[in-house]
Amino acid sequence: MRYVVFPGGHRIRPRLCVSVAEACGDDDPEAADCAAAAIELLHCASLVHDDLPCFDDAPIRRGKPSVHVEYGEPIAVLAGDALIVLAFETLARGAARSPRRLAALLRCVAQSVGAPRGIVAGQAWECESAVSLTDYQRSKTGSLFVAATVAGAIAAGAEPEPWRMLGATLGEAYQVADDLRDILCDEEELGKPIGQDAARLRPNAAALLGIGGAKNRLEQLVRAAVESIPPCPGAVELRATIKAQTSQFFPRQLAREAA
Amino acid sequence: MRYVVFPGGHRIRPRLCVSVAEACGDDDPEAADCAAAAIELLHCASLVHDDLPCFDDAPIRRGKPSVHVEYGEPIAVLAGDALIVLAFETLARGAARSPRRLAALLRCVAQSVGAPRGIVAGQAWECESAVSLTDYQRSKTGSLFVAATVAGAIAAGAEPEPWRMLGATLGEAYQVADDLRDILCDEEELGKPIGQDAARLRPNAAALLGIGGAKNRLEQLVRAAVESIPPCPGAVELRATIKAQTSQFFPRQLAREAA
Repeated sequence: MRYVVFPGGHRIRPRLCVSVAEACGDDDPEAADCAAAAIELLHCASLVHDDLPCFDDAPIRRGKPSVHVEYGEPIAVLAGDALIVLAFETLARGAARSPRRLAALLRCVAQSVGAPRGIVAGQAWECESAVSLTDYQRSKTGSLFVAATVAGAIAAGAEPEPWRMLGATLGEAYQVADDLRDILCDEEELGKPIGQDAARLRPNAAALLGIGGAKNRLEQLVRAAVESIPPCPGAVELRATIKAQTSQFFPRQLAREAA
Repeated sequence: MRYVVFPGGHRIRPRLCVSVAEACGDDDPEAADCAAAAIELLHCASLVHDDLPCFDDAPIRRGKPSVHVEYGEPIAVLAGDALIVLAFETLARGAARSPRRLAALLRCVAQSVGAPRGIVAGQAWECESAVSLTDYQRSKTGSLFVAATVAGAIAAGAEPEPWRMLGATLGEAYQVADDLRDILCDEEELGKPIGQDAARLRPNAAALLGIGGAKNRLEQLVRAAVESIPPCPGAVELRATIKAQTSQFFPRQLAREAA
């Protein structure tokens, strides 16, 4: 479990969760921290199970051997299971000060990772012969970004629904960026094998729109995300944070060109 | 997911959870029902993942093809994952009336299924060359029985710790009964392949103590369980319920001999 979680990637989702909580006033930082940690643990769990031989059979992840390569398939299945459980246990740990927020947090996070609309559903679309691209990407990638913004708001005692659009738009932006990276990056920058979408016949925005088209789409989505931020005490700081965080979405090559 | 959960087995763990809640006064039946359902969903999830090719590679379960045989390995992994998530979502659903009980319920249930002391840890012991039998059985079987009694008490607003012994003792009794069934039953009664402990070199109480010895041990554990019931409004009814429920632990052959 430690091998899966450390060292991490960019921790985009938990940082987004905490940033939204801070923008909403963050009257209970422990709740926001625990929600953010739970979301990252669930993301890590999904990586371990996605890498299994019966799915992507991926040999490396975040620049090191994937869990089933390092520890064997049984331990990889169990580590993923235990990370899911630990995520929910972590949510409970953050509920000391505001116990009435826990049920909403739990529902929000659970729905973003389970079936019928969470990560598990997204991964299950890969088993189908006819795939709705929108449903697939919304479930597999978008749902946890929505959970990050919505849970951040709930943890801070704010109205959650106005924060859904920010998560959904950032999730879509991240997906486009991921598609660009799959085509533009080398394995070292990506920390996992490149060209996997083409190899697996998965839809890829950069293949569909061209690299320039995908880059425009990504910039458009980042602008839409920043504009979607609802009125809140820390809106100005959050806009700056989102711009800084999303600049990391761009592959090095595009970031260099833009600079 | 429906295929895994219906039709079920004896539903021993959720019935135990509800029985304990009723014995404690059950001032919030929805909380107890949801805790019981969560526990059964987690039990079902563990069966699906245990049956996977990388663990038991079991062809049948509850008298029908196991999930990976019927739907393929990817869907079996995902169905298990989604059932874990659904269990926690179900806990949240039961928290409307007594939100302050949710964090304790969540912790109790999560600890019984995760690592380092829950079902996942128990299953992981099977990957080790040197196994502590007690740790293995306590984690793999006992932990969810403890969760059933403790969660029943928490859901009803009662002090949870006095209920731990009942769950632990019933879990041990169930393990001995399961060992007896693995040796005494035919595949039809068991709904899964027999003789698996010997085939997999797993410890088996009936092999260690003999069938008579294991039967005595089972009766002794059932008596100890009934005696462990702490003072509560419905103690008399609960004692009768436990006796009736545990009589189902005995394989048909032993039950006939006892009659």
